[in-house]
Amino acid sequence: MIGAKRWAIADGYIPEGSHGPEPEMDSHGTVSILNTADEDVDVELTIYYADRDPAGPYEIAVGGERTKHVRFNDLEEPESVPRATPFAAVIEADGPIVCQHTRLDSRQAENALLSTMAHPGD
Amino acid sequence: MIGAKRWAIADGYIPEGSHGPEPEMDSHGTVSILNTADEDVDVELTIYYADRDPAGPYEIAVGGERTKHVRFNDLEEPESVPRATPFAAVIEADGPIVCQHTRLDSRQAENALLSTMAHPGD
Amino acid sequence: MIGAKRWAIADGYIPEGSHGPEPEMDSHGTVSILNTADEDVDVELTIYYADRDPAGPYEIAVGGERTKHVRFNDLEEPESVPRATPFAAVIEADGPIVCQHTRLDSRQAENALLSTMAHPGD
Amino acid sequence: MIGAKRWAIADGYIPEGSHGPEPEMDSHGTVSILNTADEDVDVELTIYYADRDPAGPYEIAVGGERTKHVRFNDLEEPESVPRATPFAAVIEADGPIVCQHTRLDSRQAENALLSTMAHPGD
Repeated sequence: MIGAKRWAIADGYIPEGSHGPEPEMDSHGTVSILNTADEDVDVELTIYYADRDPAGPYEIAVGGERTKHVRFNDLEEPESVPRATPFAAVIEADGPIVCQHTRLDSRQAENALLSTMAHPGD
Repeated sequence: MIGAKRWAIADGYIPEGSHGPEPEMDSHGTVSILNTADEDVDVELTIYYADRDPAGPYEIAVGGERTKHVRFNDLEEPESVPRATPFAAVIEADGPIVCQHTRLDSRQAENALLSTMAHPGD
Repeated sequence: MIGAKRWAIADGYIPEGSHGPEPEMDSHGTVSILNTADEDVDVELTIYYADRDPAGPYEIAVGGERTKHVRFNDLEEPESVPRATPFAAVIEADGPIVCQHTRLDSRQAENALLSTMAHPGD
Repeated sequence: MIGAKRWAIADGYIPEGSHGPEPEMDSHGTVSILNTADEDVDVELTIYYADRDPAGPYEIAVGGERTKHVRFNDLEEPESVPRATPFAAVIEADGPIVCQHTRLDSRQAENALLSTMAHPGD
């Protein structure tokens, strides 16, 4: 097993507008989660904003020895994540996971990408 | 709570020139700060240069359970950050925070992005 | 010597389709491995998927004081890595190594890049 | 002070060919170094290759409370770094520094960027 039970992302942002075929070229933000253990993990995601209380938890299940790449765009319960709005995220699991944060920005004709491992907690 | 009280960014740079609508497509550098604690944090940012003494501190307040995405372009007190000039930054807070560094470069017609979690101090 | 014996990447993905000359502008994902020790290291790579059991191990040898930049596109034994499919990876070695994950996406006319150091294990 | 005395980058690469005005849009790789201490630091950079012995050390001095953004393209002593050739790098200093690795790729008409903090040693 590898990873940590808590991870944080500070620069969340879903760009407004896209060029190119859906869904792969839609502007989006993603948290990719890897669970290398045999057992499933239950993951809770909390979204932090600049000027309102956090939203969540968003419940995500990741099977044993599986990865799940979750688009912030697709979160719906308890509420969707607004576009063109700065946010941050904390990911908490009941077992060790590894989290990476990626953004695809296709607001202009040619897409741009960024990615970073999230910051692991203690 | 998650994070550290000190963070560093080594590759700061605000590209000179932009394509696309303001302000979202302006070339810019950002430090995104997440404060997961209940209490506000006071953050001090120091900018390091290649050939002159550091500038700062820049004072930034981040509310409890809030994120703030700060563009280096917008810093004014005690002085603005010059464009097209290599710099670095240290971020210090009176409570644990998480910091991520992002750049959008729209000097050419289609923007490019980079991002990395900052380096946490002890 | 610098590094760790276990590393993880959560956001693996080989984009489908490319623009530009082969092989340098082919859409690809890479794990770059650095071995600073005098001795060779034997590396085992395991690929995790969203909805099936992991694949591997993929065996990679990296000489002493050498680096090897391995494209996921080129892995063949025990099986190739499918395109346009989310995956994750764990890299394990019998000595300390340093791992970085990079993607070049040339699905659109102008390529995009992302990169991050992988997450080191204990 | 913040940082470590040893850092590693696994995915070094200077793309061959460029579009746009020199020197800012030249395809390049950079290691950005921050020295937050009062005293100067002496930095030694070693370049690792896939199929030959390492090159270096490259000697770099970084003043107290200064940053230096060094392009791999500009290294000359003891030898230059070849283009379109995978490499890796280890950075060692006699005091704590912070290192970040960035690439600008302008082989195609619109540039792409990647960046990551380097991996700190013990």
